[in-house]
Order: sequence, then structure tokens, then C-alpha cells
Amino acid sequence: MAFNELVRNLGGDHPQVVPITVLVAILCLCLVIGHLLEENRWVNESITAILVGCLSGILILLGSKGKSSHILRFNEELFFMYLLPPIIFNAGFQVKKKQFFQNFFTIMLFGVVGVFISVFVITAGSWWLFPKLSFDGLTVRDYLAIGTIFSSTDTVCTLQVLHQDETPLLYSLVFGEGVVNDATSVVLFNAVQKLDVSRLDSQTALHIIGDFCYLFSTSTALGIATGLLTSYFLKTLYFGRHSSVREIALMVLMAYLSYMLAELLELSGILTVFFCGILMSHYAWHNVTEHSRVTTRHVFSMMSFVAETFIFLYVGMDALDLEKWKMSTLRRADRLSSITFKHQVIIWWAGLMRGAVSIALAFKQFTHSGVTWDGVNATMITNTNIVVLFTTLVFGFLTKPLIRHLLPHGGANNRLSREPTISKDDQTLPLLSTQESATTNLLRAKDSLSMLIERPVHTIHSYWRKFDDTYMRPIFGGSNSNR
Amino acid sequence: MAFNELVRNLGGDHPQVVPITVLVAILCLCLVIGHLLEENRWVNESITAILVGCLSGILILLGSKGKSSHILRFNEELFFMYLLPPIIFNAGFQVKKKQFFQNFFTIMLFGVVGVFISVFVITAGSWWLFPKLSFDGLTVRDYLAIGTIFSSTDTVCTLQVLHQDETPLLYSLVFGEGVVNDATSVVLFNAVQKLDVSRLDSQTALHIIGDFCYLFSTSTALGIATGLLTSYFLKTLYFGRHSSVREIALMVLMAYLSYMLAELLELSGILTVFFCGILMSHYAWHNVTEHSRVTTRHVFSMMSFVAETFIFLYVGMDALDLEKWKMSTLRRADRLSSITFKHQVIIWWAGLMRGAVSIALAFKQFTHSGVTWDGVNATMITNTNIVVLFTTLVFGFLTKPLIRHLLPHGGANNRLSREPTISKDDQTLPLLSTQESATTNLLRAKDSLSMLIERPVHTIHSYWRKFDDTYMRPIFGGSNSNR
Repeated sequence: MAFNELVRNLGGDHPQVVPITVLVAILCLCLVIGHLLEENRWVNESITAILVGCLSGILILLGSKGKSSHILRFNEELFFMYLLPPIIFNAGFQVKKKQFFQNFFTIMLFGVVGVFISVFVITAGSWWLFPKLSFDGLTVRDYLAIGTIFSSTDTVCTLQVLHQDETPLLYSLVFGEGVVNDATSVVLFNAVQKLDVSRLDSQTALHIIGDFCYLFSTSTALGIATGLLTSYFLKTLYFGRHSSVREIALMVLMAYLSYMLAELLELSGILTVFFCGILMSHYAWHNVTEHSRVTTRHVFSMMSFVAETFIFLYVGMDALDLEKWKMSTLRRADRLSSITFKHQVIIWWAGLMRGAVSIALAFKQFTHSGVTWDGVNATMITNTNIVVLFTTLVFGFLTKPLIRHLLPHGGANNRLSREPTISKDDQTLPLLSTQESATTNLLRAKDSLSMLIERPVHTIHSYWRKFDDTYMRPIFGGSNSNR
Repeated sequence: MAFNELVRNLGGDHPQVVPITVLVAILCLCLVIGHLLEENRWVNESITAILVGCLSGILILLGSKGKSSHILRFNEELFFMYLLPPIIFNAGFQVKKKQFFQNFFTIMLFGVVGVFISVFVITAGSWWLFPKLSFDGLTVRDYLAIGTIFSSTDTVCTLQVLHQDETPLLYSLVFGEGVVNDATSVVLFNAVQKLDVSRLDSQTALHIIGDFCYLFSTSTALGIATGLLTSYFLKTLYFGRHSSVREIALMVLMAYLSYMLAELLELSGILTVFFCGILMSHYAWHNVTEHSRVTTRHVFSMMSFVAETFIFLYVGMDALDLEKWKMSTLRRADRLSSITFKHQVIIWWAGLMRGAVSIALAFKQFTHSGVTWDGVNATMITNTNIVVLFTTLVFGFLTKPLIRHLLPHGGANNRLSREPTISKDDQTLPLLSTQESATTNLLRAKDSLSMLIERPVHTIHSYWRKFDDTYMRPIFGGSNSNR
């Protein structure tokens, strides 16, 4: 009571002041703790954020005498409009393009086909399993939504323990798969939302796939167009002549604009801003002053880092949202008491790390602007949270030791058991130099049968290089050094 | 109609998508136009933003067939919580500390005493003038509020044509006065808001002054404490060891935290974040890696730049808010038609450049969350907008030629007619070197009678230097080079 009054008095005219102050303070705390635990082999930033979030949730809960555990309600808009864009843009901006495009087919295979399979399996599985657990009241659309929600894996966690410089191939595979996967999930989720569930036939599947291809290509095109436009402006007008500030501002704003435009046109903002990031790092970044280069690289990382920490912090705080738990428990009390254990099965079965995108999609499906009063929906949100928490904590804890164990020399002997010997060369060579990469590729091709599929990619790459040098660079700029 | 429908359709689930997209696109446009006009001697960034804002306002007005000119309603919360902090923090971070503190007394004289005089004159003046113009319906508190609103000058515009390196003294005077003035206005405005207007006596004035001193000292102390804490953390933990990103994030978050804490405790966030900026640039900035230094300097400038442009853009767009104008006109139609001309007198009399802080304070006083249905209040908002528009455009246009005319060699022969000869030395010398500055100060003292008051400041400065070197730097870090 006293706490609530205090909060009300302190807030004054602006009700947002208190939650923002608390969140910023906790974010600072996370940064410091994350830094202190940096050398610890079990813990990573996401886990720190989740645990700190839980702890602050408990403190607030005690302070407010069990009234509200999360000061700032999870806001799907906040997530999709402000937190997600910097993360994905930075991903595109920092990814090693060569590695990414050389493994493009593999990535698409895992990212797109994998998600389609996953959605099918999870939807069918929950359709079969949920009624058996006496957990019903869900519509066809809800089952399909569950499929897409749990098909979006979260690679943020894994990437925090993988290092791009130590394990470039593994990194680009895991990472690229993650982005494509996220995008596919969001696209599928939107397709499911618009689906006419009363008429489900074989045409529907074709329709979804057609929709997906359309969205994928237009989103990518929009991202590429924005990236090229920015590069062209930066090259032609040469902003750095007067001030570096304007260049940096233009890059940040154009990146955000690409995302918002995609959302406005109901495309996949994630894909758009990802490709915008790739194009910007390939062309635009080389057209600005040295200071702007250093700044943009760090700013994009910083924004992405803060957004990620914020999301995990929220997941931790929301775990203590008593209202949702109570509603879930009420429901459970009506049925068998063993349902809690059976729910665990779903959690286990839902498998690998699920992250912020899952949470956001779940909120989008099961709540109206972050609030729900329905027992079924509350249970779904709680379950999503459990899955995210559990997978992040358990797999997060295990990933670092796992990688250390499997890749004792920090090499790229990855879990896909590809490329056992090449990785070490890759490490010592400058990644974007031409000749060494060619040798590496030859070695790589000889080494493994599966590498043969990358041969055509390599040819495509050399054609692209010629095209890039002849037509693109004179217009849009780009690095002059070896690549 | 068609436009509105389009907007509604496009917006989809997120009503914010359309306004944000439009605003970001217009911001980009402003950047490009501002860059192209950089060498033009009449136009500066603020004027560009206002004109572009007006133009887009007209386009949106035509598109929506006269329905709404401003897509995003001016939000006092948005301004005070997100746009103002980066501007003021950057101001503190980039200000030349030595110049600022050497002229501290002068600045305080202009900033504090000036505002008190200005508030008194404007309040008394409007009390006398408004009823004569048949414009009544305002309370005592409204008159006092008008006094504080129009006492907050906007130095952003002037600073865009003054250059810190060309005219260091003038810059630090104008700028320092601006910050202290802004802070004083906000403090006074808050004092007026809390005032018990039913009992106005001689005690009230003393009470306001006492309040002001308390707020001024506690706000400053909070800013200094946060700055020192950040420096201490950065020095002790040495974040750069693992990642520059964490250092940058910590600086940004702690700066914002200081502002929010001040708002939470009902202090002056402006003063707090300004002093936090000064402390951070003096200690914290020297404790981070080279890359972080480049990045933070540019990031703070960039955020401040974007926030400023955004504010001026809004002022331009809001100038076409038909609803407010209609309400003002209705009121006018009731009275004499000559009132429009008489209103012009107020505008002229209100004088020099008023800026974003005025607008924000006016909205705070006369609206409830950006919306007003009362004719009197709408008139006040419109008038404030007129004053800001007019002064920014006219004085903005004139400042650059004026400075060119008065300071033909780019020296510091400023309009206060102080320091006619020293400025050129000042220009060529490194600003923070010890010996030359001493000579400069001696010359300065000889040169002008008014300079004599700065002599004790210089002595204070040397004591401060000793204290800083002996006690502060070992704990909080700082530059090792000459200063």
C-alpha cells in the first residue's frame, strides 16, 4: 500500500516516469553484473537479465504487497516498433556477408523449410495432445498460431556464446538461420491471422506458400532499395564535408524508415531491415567519414544490446505476473492436478531455445494490448513464458560448456559436423581477402561431399563480384580495399 | 476522405505506424535539405525544419481535405521525457568547461536574475495589456505562467550559427545563459503551478526564491553525483576490457537515469542532466576506450540534433493546426476585428527567440495531454506558437548575417561588446592549455573593467585544479594530458 502510494505520489503528472526510471536503473545493474560475469563460463547476458528481472519482480511484488509484479506492461507495439528493429538491423549490419551468402542455400533450407515442417509438426502435435490433457477451448487458428509461435527460435542467446571471429561458419549458419526463421515465423503468423479458417483445403497451403514467396521477395526488395538509396545519397552529397552527425543520423533514420515502411505495407519488417543492414554495411558504410564509421558500428551494436537486455529483463519480470498465474492455476484446479506435470511434457517437447519473438507473437495472438481476462489465453501466455524462460535458462547455461566441449580449440567443428579441418585456416585468414578464400574454398570443396553444393554458389559469387565492381560500386560506393 | 481511409487501412493493428513513418521520412528530408543549405548564410537547420514542417502540414491538410494538419499530436510527455534530455545532456557534454566556469557569475546573472526580471515584467505587462485588448478569462496563475513561458529563450537557434571554436567566449556566454535560463524557467514554472494563488503576499516571493535555491542546489548535486558514480564505475570496472558496447550503453543509460531520477524527485531534470554531462565529459569520458570516446561524442551530438530537428519540425506542422486557429478566430470574431493587429503587438513585445521549451510549457499549462476544447486556452497555444515561429524565423534569419557583420573575422567581438582584442588569441590557442590561458586572462583583466569580477573566478579555478588533481582524478579518472 505504502509503496503504491509512494509510486503514485512520485509519478506526479507523468505516470511513465516511475516505470522508466526503475527499468533504466535495472538495465544499468544488468550491464554491470553482465560485465562482472563475462568470464564465467556458465552465465551469459540473457540469463543475467532474466535472473535480475525475476529478482526485481520479486522485490516489486513484496513492495506492492502482491499487487503487480511488472511495472511496465509488456507492450507488443513497444517490442515490434522499437526493440526488434535495432536488433535485426544490427544483425544484418554486422554479419559477415561472404560467409552468409556462401551458405545462403543451407540457411534457407534450415530457415524456411525447417519452419514449415516445425509449424506442421507442432500444430498437429498440439491438436492431438491438448485435448488429451483436458486443455481445450482453442480454435483452429489458435493451434496454427501455437505452431508458428513455437517455431520461431531465438538465436540471440546462442550467438552470445558463439563468436563470429572464432567460429565464423557456425556463427553465420546459426545466425542466418535465425533471421530467416524469425522472418518466416512472422510471415506465417500473419498469414495464419488472415486465414479464413472456415474453408481449409489443399488450396490453403498453396495460398500460404504463395503469400510467403510474395512477402519474402517484396520485403527483401524494399530493404535493398532503401539501403541503396541511402548509399547513393551519402556518396553523392558527401555529408561528412559539413558534419559527421548528419551522416550518422541519416543512416539510423533510413534504417528505421525501411522497417516502418515495410510494416506500413504489411510486409515483413524483419527481412527488410535485415537486408537494409547488409546493403548499408556493404555500400553506405564506406561512403562516410572515419569517425562516422567507428560511431555507427558501435551505435548499432549498442542499441541492439540494450534492446536485447531489455527484452530478457522483461521476460524475467513477467514470470512473476501473479494475475496470469492465478488464472492458469484456477483453470488447472478444475481439472486433474497432474496436469502441471503433463504441461511439463509440452515444455520439453517444445524443445530448443524460444525467445522474444515467441513472446511477442503470443501476446499478439492471445491478448488485446497486453491485457487478458480469459483463463485459456492467460494459460497460453504463461506457457509461452515458461517455455522461453526454461529453454533460455537451461540451454543458455549448457550452450557455453557444450561449445567449449565440442570445439575445444575454438575452431568451427560445429554440431552439424561439417568442415572438420578448414575452420582453422579460416580463423587465421582475413575473411574478406580474395585469394586465400579461393584456396580455402577449394580445400573445402575437396574435403567434404556436402560442400559440392556450394560450388555453384561460389561461381555465382564471382559473377556478383564482377557485377558489383563494374556497375554497383561506381554508383553506390563501397570499400576500395581488398575483398 | 480517400487519404484518411488509406491511412486507416495502412495503419492496421498499429495506429502509430503511419505518423512515425511520415515523421521519420520528413526528418530524413530535413537532414538532406539542411545539408544542401549548409553554406547558405540566411538559413539554418531550425528554419529548414520549420519550413519543411509547414509544407508537410499543408500537404497533409490538402490530402486529408482540411481534417488534421498534425499527424502526431504534440505530446508534452514525449518532449520532456525523450526529446529534451538528449539536447541538454549533449549541451553539458560538449560545452567548453573552462570558458563556462570562468564566466559562471556572468552566466548566472543573465540566466537567473534575468529570468526573474523577465517574468515580473511580462506578467505585469500582460496583466495590464490583456484586459485592454478585450482578451480576458485568464487566472492569476495563467498570467504568471505566461511570464515564465515567454521568459525561456531558445538558444538552440543562435548556437547553430555561432561556432564554439570560432567564438568560444560568446558561445559559452550565450549557451550557458540559455541552459541556466531554461532551468530557471522550468523551476519557476513548477513553483507557479504549486502556488496557492488565493493568498498572494510578500512571503510568496520569498518562498519562490527559497524554493528556487533548494531546487537549484539539489538538482545540481544529483547531476554531479550521477556523473561521478558513472566515472567511478567505468574506471574501477574497466568495461572496455570486454566490450566497448557496454561502456557506451552505461554512459547513455546513466545520463538518462539522472534526468528521470530528477523528474521523479520533482527536481529540475534539465539542470541535473546538464551537470551530469559536464561531469561525464570531465571524468567518465577519459576512462573509456578510444573507440567509445569517438562514438559517445558523435552519438550524443546525433541524438541532440535529431531531437532538435524533430521539435522544430513539429512547430512548423502545428502552425497549421486548423482547430486551434478556428477556436482562436471564433473568439476574435466576438470582439473587435482589430484584435489581430493588437495581438501582433504582444508578439513583437514578447521579443527575442522563444523555442521548444516555451511550446512545451504552454502545452503543459493550457492543455490536458495535448488536447484543448477551450477557446481561451487554444488562443494561448496558438499565440505561443506564433511567437516561437515568428522569433525563430525572423531572428533565425537575421542572426547569421548579424554575426557575420559584427564579427567579420569570425572573432569573438560579441554583441555584449566585451573583449574586443583578446578573442583572436583565444582562437589560435589550444583552449585548455594552462599557460596561454593565464596570459589571456591577465590581458583580459587589464582590458576591461567588467573583467575584474572574473579575477576571483580564476583563483577559484586554480584551487579547483589542485583539488581535482589531488583527490578527484585518482578516484574518478580523467585526462592525463595538459589542461
